[in-house]
Amino acid sequence: MTLLQSALDRITPVSSDLIAQTQARLDNKTKPLGALGRLEEIAARYAAIAGNFAPETGPKVIYTFAGDHGIVEEGVSACPKEVTTQMVFNFLRGGAGVNVLARHAGAEVRVVDIGVDHEFEPAPGLHLCKVARGTRNFTKESAMTREEAIAALEVGIALADRAKAEGIAMLGTGDMGIGNTTPSSAIIAALTGCPVAEVTHRGTGIDDAALQKKIGLIEAGLALHRPDPADPVDLLAKVGGLEIGGIAGLVLGAAANRIPVVVDGFISTAGALIACELHPNVKDYVFAAHASVEIGHRRMLQRIDAEPILDLQLRLGEGTGAALAMGIIEAAVKILKEMATFAEAGVTP
Amino acid sequence: MTLLQSALDRITPVSSDLIAQTQARLDNKTKPLGALGRLEEIAARYAAIAGNFAPETGPKVIYTFAGDHGIVEEGVSACPKEVTTQMVFNFLRGGAGVNVLARHAGAEVRVVDIGVDHEFEPAPGLHLCKVARGTRNFTKESAMTREEAIAALEVGIALADRAKAEGIAMLGTGDMGIGNTTPSSAIIAALTGCPVAEVTHRGTGIDDAALQKKIGLIEAGLALHRPDPADPVDLLAKVGGLEIGGIAGLVLGAAANRIPVVVDGFISTAGALIACELHPNVKDYVFAAHASVEIGHRRMLQRIDAEPILDLQLRLGEGTGAALAMGIIEAAVKILKEMATFAEAGVTP
Repeated sequence: MTLLQSALDRITPVSSDLIAQTQARLDNKTKPLGALGRLEEIAARYAAIAGNFAPETGPKVIYTFAGDHGIVEEGVSACPKEVTTQMVFNFLRGGAGVNVLARHAGAEVRVVDIGVDHEFEPAPGLHLCKVARGTRNFTKESAMTREEAIAALEVGIALADRAKAEGIAMLGTGDMGIGNTTPSSAIIAALTGCPVAEVTHRGTGIDDAALQKKIGLIEAGLALHRPDPADPVDLLAKVGGLEIGGIAGLVLGAAANRIPVVVDGFISTAGALIACELHPNVKDYVFAAHASVEIGHRRMLQRIDAEPILDLQLRLGEGTGAALAMGIIEAAVKILKEMATFAEAGVTP
Repeated sequence: MTLLQSALDRITPVSSDLIAQTQARLDNKTKPLGALGRLEEIAARYAAIAGNFAPETGPKVIYTFAGDHGIVEEGVSACPKEVTTQMVFNFLRGGAGVNVLARHAGAEVRVVDIGVDHEFEPAPGLHLCKVARGTRNFTKESAMTREEAIAALEVGIALADRAKAEGIAMLGTGDMGIGNTTPSSAIIAALTGCPVAEVTHRGTGIDDAALQKKIGLIEAGLALHRPDPADPVDLLAKVGGLEIGGIAGLVLGAAANRIPVVVDGFISTAGALIACELHPNVKDYVFAAHASVEIGHRRMLQRIDAEPILDLQLRLGEGTGAALAMGIIEAAVKILKEMATFAEAGVTP
């Protein structure tokens, strides 16, 4: 059996009984019923995933998957392709946004070269898992072969399996790949059948003309390949990205290993979407970190029934929003673990 | 000169030049322009308040002001009045929501007895600053005298002055007072002239009948006293609360001492509102922590031009939202201080 199939076979729903039991404990804390709002909902689901009323929230690791995109040759991004490689080095030196915010949250950043068009030397914090040196231009040919798409998914699954063995309590996802809002928009458009223009936005900051061109390229790619929305691997292969596949695999593997996974913004949610389409219970394990500025993001979140934790108008990716949301999730779990009950505090319920 | 007047005299606008200069530094970090959204806006204003491009974010202190309310005898709350006192003891033992979330944020909680109907013994973490043993029932008489209202404001101002002398970098506000959504709704209704029903909500969780009664009581109080919306001290005295006055003073004192102040939810924002009505530049120093479930909160935030940092459906008060928002603000400042520039990282701008 393949790693993908074995992960899919291990995924089970999160127990609604455990969620209700955790909520009953929260209801006994010194506060009006429900007064901590989404913190209570987050804590209850987190505890149910962990199967523990006093769950661990650390160690926490954010996997930032990096890959290049053939479609960049069409001019879909304001940045040159080399920036993907340059940013990997920035991550490894600890200078990028995700490094700063992960340090703040007490999380470790691990960078995964799953598809960068550069040969990296081994380095601390870098996983060398290259499937290919970038995808192909999907307006001309399939971005990946089906085998490459499955290999990308299995990179993520293997990392989640290893995280479980290491005792990682909470996972986060992040992405780096110049051009990767384009495949992300293509994925949500193909899955829902909605007009491409409704889910395609400015990425790193393209102007109106470039945005129109980007929409046209996605439409052309979808018309050429006609990916099967009922076959998420086909969709990932034809118009996706290697880092999106890796993220999808990590999310799937997190669900298979019962690890809560904090999904960053637009690109990460494209990955989570692929994972959720592969198995309906994956979404039970997903915490949506934030609402991205990218206009297609809300539609992705609706499809996986996720309400974002933060809305800070972020559009950087890398796992920056996941790092911030990890702090909120950890706070929510501390409410469950540390707050006094009415009886303990001698407060009238 | 009174403490209040001297604080008002020291308040100056936050420099828009400094905000722009900080933004220019953020624009040079390895990310697309503006891609960290509200984190950038928060960091720029925080630095401008501190007058420093690498500002300190600690030590951080949340002052939780506690007071009782005469209006509680009319049945406006689902909780008995004794809970105010019981919760002060819960705070001092570290078991309440604000304690848990403040520890998570690395902030200290200091409780201020400004108007609880109980005589507390001295205790670590408790400031004994009682102005009165609660307000009076504002449907029958003025909640406070004008002198009591000024005394409450000056408690907060004195605490901010002391915080400055101690080197506190960031302040937060919190409240505890059974019944205190009622004066908070009265304040925003009186200030804006909007219908009381549009700004009055369920507090700790009252039912429809109790909500209708609460609305009627506020209308009766406003009809009886006709507080002058151009005189915030009059408004505070007639229909306000002692803890609301203390919070208003702390916010005013924070502005006078150029300390960023993180304002919690509905009751804290009622206090911030009084401070902002007293001096138009106070709002430059205010960070609105979160959007409360209480329906009158948004109108308060509009009046002080503040956009909440979080929306987690909280309605607990105490400073819980302020603690969470402090974590986000600190993260924003770390972006400014720790993130690599394009030149440092060798990334193509």
